[in-house]
Amino acid sequence: MSIISLLSDFGHKDPYVAEMKAVILSINPEVHIVDVTHEVEKFNIRMGAYVLASATPSFPSNTVHMAVVDPGVGTQRRAIVVETRYSFYVGPDNGLLMLAAQNEHITNVYKIDNPKYMLPKVSKTFHGRDIFAPAAAYLAAGIKPSDFGAAIDDYIVPDFAKPHQRNGELLGEVLYVDDFGNIISNISAEDLKNVDINEGNTLQVRLGDKIVSLIFCSAYGKVAVGSPLALVGSSGFLEVSINQGSGSKTYRAKVGDAFCISIVSSQ
Amino acid sequence: MSIISLLSDFGHKDPYVAEMKAVILSINPEVHIVDVTHEVEKFNIRMGAYVLASATPSFPSNTVHMAVVDPGVGTQRRAIVVETRYSFYVGPDNGLLMLAAQNEHITNVYKIDNPKYMLPKVSKTFHGRDIFAPAAAYLAAGIKPSDFGAAIDDYIVPDFAKPHQRNGELLGEVLYVDDFGNIISNISAEDLKNVDINEGNTLQVRLGDKIVSLIFCSAYGKVAVGSPLALVGSSGFLEVSINQGSGSKTYRAKVGDAFCISIVSSQ
Amino acid sequence: MSIISLLSDFGHKDPYVAEMKAVILSINPEVHIVDVTHEVEKFNIRMGAYVLASATPSFPSNTVHMAVVDPGVGTQRRAIVVETRYSFYVGPDNGLLMLAAQNEHITNVYKIDNPKYMLPKVSKTFHGRDIFAPAAAYLAAGIKPSDFGAAIDDYIVPDFAKPHQRNGELLGEVLYVDDFGNIISNISAEDLKNVDINEGNTLQVRLGDKIVSLIFCSAYGKVAVGSPLALVGSSGFLEVSINQGSGSKTYRAKVGDAFCISIVSSQ
Repeated sequence: MSIISLLSDFGHKDPYVAEMKAVILSINPEVHIVDVTHEVEKFNIRMGAYVLASATPSFPSNTVHMAVVDPGVGTQRRAIVVETRYSFYVGPDNGLLMLAAQNEHITNVYKIDNPKYMLPKVSKTFHGRDIFAPAAAYLAAGIKPSDFGAAIDDYIVPDFAKPHQRNGELLGEVLYVDDFGNIISNISAEDLKNVDINEGNTLQVRLGDKIVSLIFCSAYGKVAVGSPLALVGSSGFLEVSINQGSGSKTYRAKVGDAFCISIVSSQ
Repeated sequence: MSIISLLSDFGHKDPYVAEMKAVILSINPEVHIVDVTHEVEKFNIRMGAYVLASATPSFPSNTVHMAVVDPGVGTQRRAIVVETRYSFYVGPDNGLLMLAAQNEHITNVYKIDNPKYMLPKVSKTFHGRDIFAPAAAYLAAGIKPSDFGAAIDDYIVPDFAKPHQRNGELLGEVLYVDDFGNIISNISAEDLKNVDINEGNTLQVRLGDKIVSLIFCSAYGKVAVGSPLALVGSSGFLEVSINQGSGSKTYRAKVGDAFCISIVSSQ
Repeated sequence: MSIISLLSDFGHKDPYVAEMKAVILSINPEVHIVDVTHEVEKFNIRMGAYVLASATPSFPSNTVHMAVVDPGVGTQRRAIVVETRYSFYVGPDNGLLMLAAQNEHITNVYKIDNPKYMLPKVSKTFHGRDIFAPAAAYLAAGIKPSDFGAAIDDYIVPDFAKPHQRNGELLGEVLYVDDFGNIISNISAEDLKNVDINEGNTLQVRLGDKIVSLIFCSAYGKVAVGSPLALVGSSGFLEVSINQGSGSKTYRAKVGDAFCISIVSSQ
C-alpha cells in the first residue's frame, strides 16, 4: 500500500482531519495514512515547515506528503503539487512544503487547477478537504503530477534564516521548541563542522538575552538528571536541553529567539 | 477494505480508544479505522452529535460510524445500530447518533442485545469496548443490522434547537466553537436563503449579550488579518470568525449562547 | 495484517511518532499500527507501564507492542524484545514493558544488539525510531526474537506496590488518574474477593489524608449525577469516581497517594 502523510494546524478536537481522511479513502482505499502532526500552532507556516522537514526523511520513497497550514485559503494563493527526486508534496503555495521538498531536490512544481481531481463542490474555507485531499489520493493512486495543472517556477520559497558565522561565532536562532522543552536551533551538524567542538567541551550559548554555559554531549543521559546540556538532536540540529527536564521552561526560550554559540574551553 | 469511524469523549491519554481498536481488529482485521475525534467534551452529547454530523458526509457509503459519549453506560439505556440509506451507526440510544443519521434518512433502528456479537464478558462501565466495538466490527464484516436485535421505533431523537425567524430576524444559537475559535451557529446556508444577504453586506450578529457588526464574506482571507467576519463555513452553517485570529477569544462566546442576525445595510 | 501497538511519552505536537511509523512502514508495509497513547507523562515509566498493561489484554495474540518511555536513551540501558505466551514487547529495559508482559507469562527476553535489524545510523537520542521501530517491524514480519540478540535473565522488573491486607483493611495506593478524573487504585477485583463487599455497601476509602464514604456500585449511572461512588472499573481495579463528574478534581488525589479501604456497613 502506498503512504500519504498528513500535517495540519487543525488540532484533534474538530472533525476536519477526519473529513480529509474520509475523502482520501473514498478515492483511494489502498493507502496507509500517517499523521505527522495536527498540532502546528494555528497559521504558523514556519513551524509547520520545520516539523514536516524533520519527519519526511524517515518515510519511504514515493510517499505523498500533504500539509495544510493555510491562512490564505480562499484567496488567490495557489494549490500546488511538488515533485522531488524522492517523494511528492501537496498543499498551499505559501512556503510550507519547501523546507522539506528542497532537502529532496525539487524536480517540478505544478499548479492544481484541474477540476477533475477536486471534489465536485469546492468550498472557499476548506481546501484541505476539497482540493488537497483528493490530489493526494489521486497522486498515491498513480495520477501524474503534470495532470493536475501547468508547471510553474514562481512558487514561494521561504527565507527561513540560516545561521551566520562571524569571528568564530555562529549566530543562529531558535527554530522550534518541542514538547519535551528541547530548544532546537537552525545550527546543523554540518554547520558545526566549521567549529571546533568535541564531546565534553563547554559551550557558551547566547539564548535570547541570556548566556548559558553547557556541556556538549551526545545523549541526554550523559549529564545528571536536571542538568542542562547541548547536543545535536535526532533531526540533526543543535539543541539546548535539560536531562529529564524542560529547557524551554528553564530558559524561557521561544521560536525566533537568538541562538548563538562560541567555544570557550576544551576539557 | 471497509471503513469504521470512531468518535468518543475518551481523550488521547487513556488506553480506552486503543482497547476499542484492538477489539475491532481482533474481530475484523480488514478495516480502515478513522478517528473522527476523541476530544468531545466529557458527556456532551450535543457536541458529539454536531461533530459527528459534520464529519459523516465526507465518508463513502457503507461506512460504519461508531460513537461513544455515554453518560448512561451500565444503566437501562439501550445500545443500537442505525441503518440509513447511506451508512451505519453504532452507539448508545441517547440521541448522539441521530443528528448525523437523520441527514442520511434513517431506514431502520435495531437494539443490540444478541450476545453472539458482544465480547464474552461485558463490563458495566465500558460498552465502547465490550458491545459497540464488536458490533461495528461485525457490521463492517457484513453481518446484517437485524442480526443484532429487534427493530425499535422509540429511539431517542435529540431536540437540538433550530433557528426561528421573527420580523426579518433569525434567532439561533451557538452550536459549536471549533479549535480555531470559529463560533458556529445552527443557522444553515438553507436558512439564509430566506434572508437577503450577499457577499460584502454588513451583518449585525447578536452574540450572547453583545452586538457585533461584521462583513459577510465567502473566505477568511477576504478581510484583513485580525478582522472579524461572518461566513458560511465548510459544514454549511453561519459562523463568526476572525481572520487568523480567534472569534471565541474576542467575543467570549460559548455553546448555547444566542446567535441572532438581522441585515442592516447593503454596500 | 499483523498489528503493532505504539505507546510513548512523545505527545502529538512533535514529528517523533510519525517518524517511528514511517520507519515501521518502510520495513513492513503490511501492518496495522494502533496508538495506545503518546500522552504518558514525560519520563513516567510507572504511568506508561500501567496504561500499557490496561490496553494489551484487548489485542489479539501475536501483536507486537512497542513502548518508549525512555529517560536513559543513549546510556548503557539495554534495548529488549520480550516474548510472552501471547504476544511480543519491544522497548527499553527499564521496567516499562514488564507489568503488561508479566500478565501474559514471559517466556524469553532478548537483548537487541544485532545491527542488521536497526537503522543504518543509530542516533543517541531517538532509539524509538532507530532501534525499537525497526525491531517491531521485523518482529511483525516474522523475524524470530532470538535473532535480535542474546537471551538475558537480568532484565529490570518494576516493584510497583501491591496492596497489603491488615486487620480487615486493604492498604493500597493510587496507580493512575484517567482523563475522566477516575482515581484508579492498585486494588484488584481479585484482592476484593478477600473482603466482604457487595453492591450497595457503603465503603470508606482513605484517599491521601481524606476519608470518604462511598456507595459500592457496578456502574457510574447507578448513583445520581454528581454523586461519588466506588466501583471496579473496566481494567479490573477499584476506583473512586463521580457520576458525570471528576473524582480527581473533587478529592485532589494524585498517583502515589494512599488508597485504603475498610467495610463499615451492609445496607
